[in-house]
Amino acid sequence: MGSHSPLFYDSPLAVQSAAGVWLTSMDGVTYLDGYNNVPHVGHCHPYVVEAVHEQARQLNIHTRYLNDRVLDYAEQLLTTVDQPLARLALTNSGSEANELALRIARQHTGHTGVLVTDFSYHGNTTSLAELTTGLPVREPLGAHVRALTIPDMDHESEGEEAVLARSLALVDTAIASLQQAGHGVSALLFYPLFSTEGLPRLPKGYVTMVVDRVRSAGGLVIADEVQAGFGRVGTSMWGHQLFDMVPDFVTLGRPMGNGHPLGGVITTTNLLDEFGSNNLYFNTFAGNPVSAAAGLAVLKVMNAEQLLDNADTTGGLLRGKLTELAGRYDFISAAKGQGLFTGLEFVDPTTGAPAPAIAKQVVEGMLARKVLISRIGRNDNMLKIRPPIPFNRQHVEILTDRLADCLTHL
Amino acid sequence: MGSHSPLFYDSPLAVQSAAGVWLTSMDGVTYLDGYNNVPHVGHCHPYVVEAVHEQARQLNIHTRYLNDRVLDYAEQLLTTVDQPLARLALTNSGSEANELALRIARQHTGHTGVLVTDFSYHGNTTSLAELTTGLPVREPLGAHVRALTIPDMDHESEGEEAVLARSLALVDTAIASLQQAGHGVSALLFYPLFSTEGLPRLPKGYVTMVVDRVRSAGGLVIADEVQAGFGRVGTSMWGHQLFDMVPDFVTLGRPMGNGHPLGGVITTTNLLDEFGSNNLYFNTFAGNPVSAAAGLAVLKVMNAEQLLDNADTTGGLLRGKLTELAGRYDFISAAKGQGLFTGLEFVDPTTGAPAPAIAKQVVEGMLARKVLISRIGRNDNMLKIRPPIPFNRQHVEILTDRLADCLTHL
Repeated sequence: MGSHSPLFYDSPLAVQSAAGVWLTSMDGVTYLDGYNNVPHVGHCHPYVVEAVHEQARQLNIHTRYLNDRVLDYAEQLLTTVDQPLARLALTNSGSEANELALRIARQHTGHTGVLVTDFSYHGNTTSLAELTTGLPVREPLGAHVRALTIPDMDHESEGEEAVLARSLALVDTAIASLQQAGHGVSALLFYPLFSTEGLPRLPKGYVTMVVDRVRSAGGLVIADEVQAGFGRVGTSMWGHQLFDMVPDFVTLGRPMGNGHPLGGVITTTNLLDEFGSNNLYFNTFAGNPVSAAAGLAVLKVMNAEQLLDNADTTGGLLRGKLTELAGRYDFISAAKGQGLFTGLEFVDPTTGAPAPAIAKQVVEGMLARKVLISRIGRNDNMLKIRPPIPFNRQHVEILTDRLADCLTHL
Repeated sequence: MGSHSPLFYDSPLAVQSAAGVWLTSMDGVTYLDGYNNVPHVGHCHPYVVEAVHEQARQLNIHTRYLNDRVLDYAEQLLTTVDQPLARLALTNSGSEANELALRIARQHTGHTGVLVTDFSYHGNTTSLAELTTGLPVREPLGAHVRALTIPDMDHESEGEEAVLARSLALVDTAIASLQQAGHGVSALLFYPLFSTEGLPRLPKGYVTMVVDRVRSAGGLVIADEVQAGFGRVGTSMWGHQLFDMVPDFVTLGRPMGNGHPLGGVITTTNLLDEFGSNNLYFNTFAGNPVSAAAGLAVLKVMNAEQLLDNADTTGGLLRGKLTELAGRYDFISAAKGQGLFTGLEFVDPTTGAPAPAIAKQVVEGMLARKVLISRIGRNDNMLKIRPPIPFNRQHVEILTDRLADCLTHL
């Protein structure tokens, strides 16, 4: 698989099994999972595993024949979004989902320009590499791409109104620049939690006002929910529902099938019909009944175990404890996030500069204490705490106790 | 899912279950599957289903932690290719695989030009749509793309040498055109069986000589094995092994996981290392141990059931019967193909012109006779017979008896 296959930790962890929020390493040690969002309703959730198995024994076929399972899934999933979102196209990954949304947006608008944020990643294909700003790729940023800086009130000395005005002026400049260069605006593509960017605390109204500007320029809006979606934010099923807006596309991936390769695009009837009438879009694996069974089982478990409420309650509890810790150490500047996606930001206490070395030390220190977390943010100075969503009060205690111990011993 | 979701047949077939080479419709009728290549070792093969289930119960995690299962799979798969091919990067589909191969090729060569064939399809992303010639997409053919016409000795009046010279001159022209336009040649991307193009009977040496020309121009060679691979051609594991050449990339998809979303790129150590040192390539789902278990189980079943030999023997038997039928009807011009990928070509007996209407009538007539097949070729006038590879002598009898009946009643 090659010497550059990316791995976590100074000494990578070899895993043999997992269940719920726990992983067991090859040497038999058990770790609390405070990091993984793909096993969304818990590692190897028995209900999901058995639903997939039952369907795999019966039928696994593409969508050029009819099968009920995929229609059941589409119907159930579409009840969670707001009008006019009403259609689902399935894919095998978030990369394929963003590719499809961008193809539809470009064709519909007749424009090629794309607005992204200045520290983001939306997939691993050529055209997604051309709009990647948050990790190393050899492809230069596309001439048709402009990257927005997202304001974070935790890093501002000015008030909300001034920050908002300045941030929206950046959007206007980016749009004008795309228009002057002849690209126009086809789409804004963003993570509703701005998680790779560092979970910023946004000035009130920011997202809605950006969306209005994009639409005034003739562009469409893509909410990439591979990080924030499926109830992680706690107060709603989708991250974009935190804001007063409905996107034209919701793109789906990671948590969707609890580890089964499954992604998709939710969009409007008009947009999908228009695309379908001009293109034969077929995705061999996507929409097979086994993938649909995985997706259905995730929705069922979320409902049966009230995991959306749990993400809200447990996330609040976790952030409360992290805020307490933040108050104790001058090198912690803020506890950030929403629901069960939480960050803890480290700075140099003297200069206030980002302190990625501390974050790295804590991630490794937590591994030594048998808790898995990681880092995010443009300066890599923020803990990334994003566990499977059945994470509960007891798991919060374990994580924060060990984190307190780790911070004491830095 | 939208009114343009592509479906087979005038009256689409609703399926409830499948096993081996048989599908059962919602109304309880059993159909012989002469079409599907995704359920490669047979629909719902119990060994594959149970291997996936066993792994899904134990662990399903990405590759930033180490897991043995994916390494076992990579090692076993790589024993089937020739030096210097020695590395595997996993993906979730053939689209993702071709995207990755093209990214590596463009970065390595510093060129952007791509050679494809003039009736082909390699995936559903933006950059693959720009080189799609075999189905409707709204994106125009990329300025950096040239499409080669593949010679078919079954349609030629001249001898092999003349056809070869003419066909290679087209390649030289395409390469010169890419170079003059400043794109250069990054890659040749082709299906070794040229199946969408109509399973042409190639002049001897054609592929090897095209590959030599591409390499002389500094380009790399991508064999897309989503159709021909995994033993379908019968005499070898890979379609490209029919020719005296080793590609720089083998891209994988459809049959790889027997329906589990699984794809990949096999390449050289040098190419993957170079790409890995310049890009952080990470694919969330790909390489998870459940997908690897599916891939491993397919290899194991192929070996245990000697399916490569079966594809050769059964394919030969099938083509023999089809050749017999071809001799009986003046509107059948040729029986074509290799191993278990076979076509039967229909023409107007008076003019010799392609007869897609007959092919469509036969596909629908075979549905009425409870056998699933489809159509291919640039004129859609060829039956596409490409069953799961456990297809045996008895299945051939059923298919050809019903086909004979269908042809009699046209």
